[in-house]
Amino acid sequence: MSAPTPPGHAVTDLLGLVALGELLAFERMAADARLAPDLRRRAALSEMAAAEIANYRRVADRLAALGVLPDDAMSAYVAPLQGFHDSTEPRDWAEAVTKAYVGDAITDDFLREIAGALREPDRQLVLDVLHESRYAEFAAAEIRLAIEADPKLAGRLSMWARRLVGEALSQAGRVAAADNGRLTALIAAGGQLDVAGLFRRLTAAHTARMTAAGLNN
Amino acid sequence: MSAPTPPGHAVTDLLGLVALGELLAFERMAADARLAPDLRRRAALSEMAAAEIANYRRVADRLAALGVLPDDAMSAYVAPLQGFHDSTEPRDWAEAVTKAYVGDAITDDFLREIAGALREPDRQLVLDVLHESRYAEFAAAEIRLAIEADPKLAGRLSMWARRLVGEALSQAGRVAAADNGRLTALIAAGGQLDVAGLFRRLTAAHTARMTAAGLNN
Repeated sequence: MSAPTPPGHAVTDLLGLVALGELLAFERMAADARLAPDLRRRAALSEMAAAEIANYRRVADRLAALGVLPDDAMSAYVAPLQGFHDSTEPRDWAEAVTKAYVGDAITDDFLREIAGALREPDRQLVLDVLHESRYAEFAAAEIRLAIEADPKLAGRLSMWARRLVGEALSQAGRVAAADNGRLTALIAAGGQLDVAGLFRRLTAAHTARMTAAGLNN
Repeated sequence: MSAPTPPGHAVTDLLGLVALGELLAFERMAADARLAPDLRRRAALSEMAAAEIANYRRVADRLAALGVLPDDAMSAYVAPLQGFHDSTEPRDWAEAVTKAYVGDAITDDFLREIAGALREPDRQLVLDVLHESRYAEFAAAEIRLAIEADPKLAGRLSMWARRLVGEALSQAGRVAAADNGRLTALIAAGGQLDVAGLFRRLTAAHTARMTAAGLNN
């Protein structure tokens, strides 16, 4: 028998998940930048990475203001998030930008959905850490350029994008399990949300983005 | 016989060197952050890294405004700067923060010296990309903490710092050779500078910093 979930905990769990997501996205994008074919593109992905760590700082500061050590709020999610990145290491530049494109966008869609379950100021904070669209445009342009140069690439990158989504969903299950369901309880408590509907919307948006970048879903 | 150096070229060479230094410092610090013993410290070094890429952007934009592709201005320096980082990969967290501490400070001292040889607005731009002192304080505090926990570490880190300086000087020679002496000509043209004096001042400042962090020179 578990006690009723304290809503405060669920909020800091969620912020911990968001903070860790930013921190690991920073690390992986910074590492993937070395796959870039020239220094200009290498710098562009590095700048995308740097935006993540600035967001990390905002969320970590909010956790501290709520009296929670960011490390404590994040620790439950290290294994699944690290697992996602370890199982999706890009082999080349095209895979790296596809991962940045797909990963950022799904993260943003997810954050937008759960923001509705939060009160202010956390609602606005989560909406604020959404990615700037100029980064998505850079990534999509790089994908289209790579496919233009080598049309066979479209198939491989489409498969890669499907694998990214598959891994993300599989790790999302581990995330939901990681904190004894407090996070899922928070999302459900938002009222507007049903999980099936959430997945449907995330998938539809993902499909539209694949098409926009010249990939098949 | 080489033609007289066009001062414009020397300035964009110098900005190219600064830009590439920032870009590579970003990459290496972001990678080294994974050596951190906890997420808080991992984030702190990642934030130091992110500050570098913001500086990269400012310098790259100035190069573009001067009509030079940043990649072209940087390319001559890739081999020596990459060589420095490849030959100084930290093996643990203490070596990583020592490298950040030593490397940032020497870079700043060097930039402050050569800024005197530049006209505005480039003089101010170079002074602006100096590192924030809070990062140096974080790194120095981490070094002192590590030595406090394990006093034997002082010897190893002191040797590591000497190796960093030695590698930096040896690659500085390759940098000076990389662009047919245009950069050294610019520095000499500053008038206030003699190279022997420059090295003397850099070394003195480095020694003082070593002492401040509990290391021997």
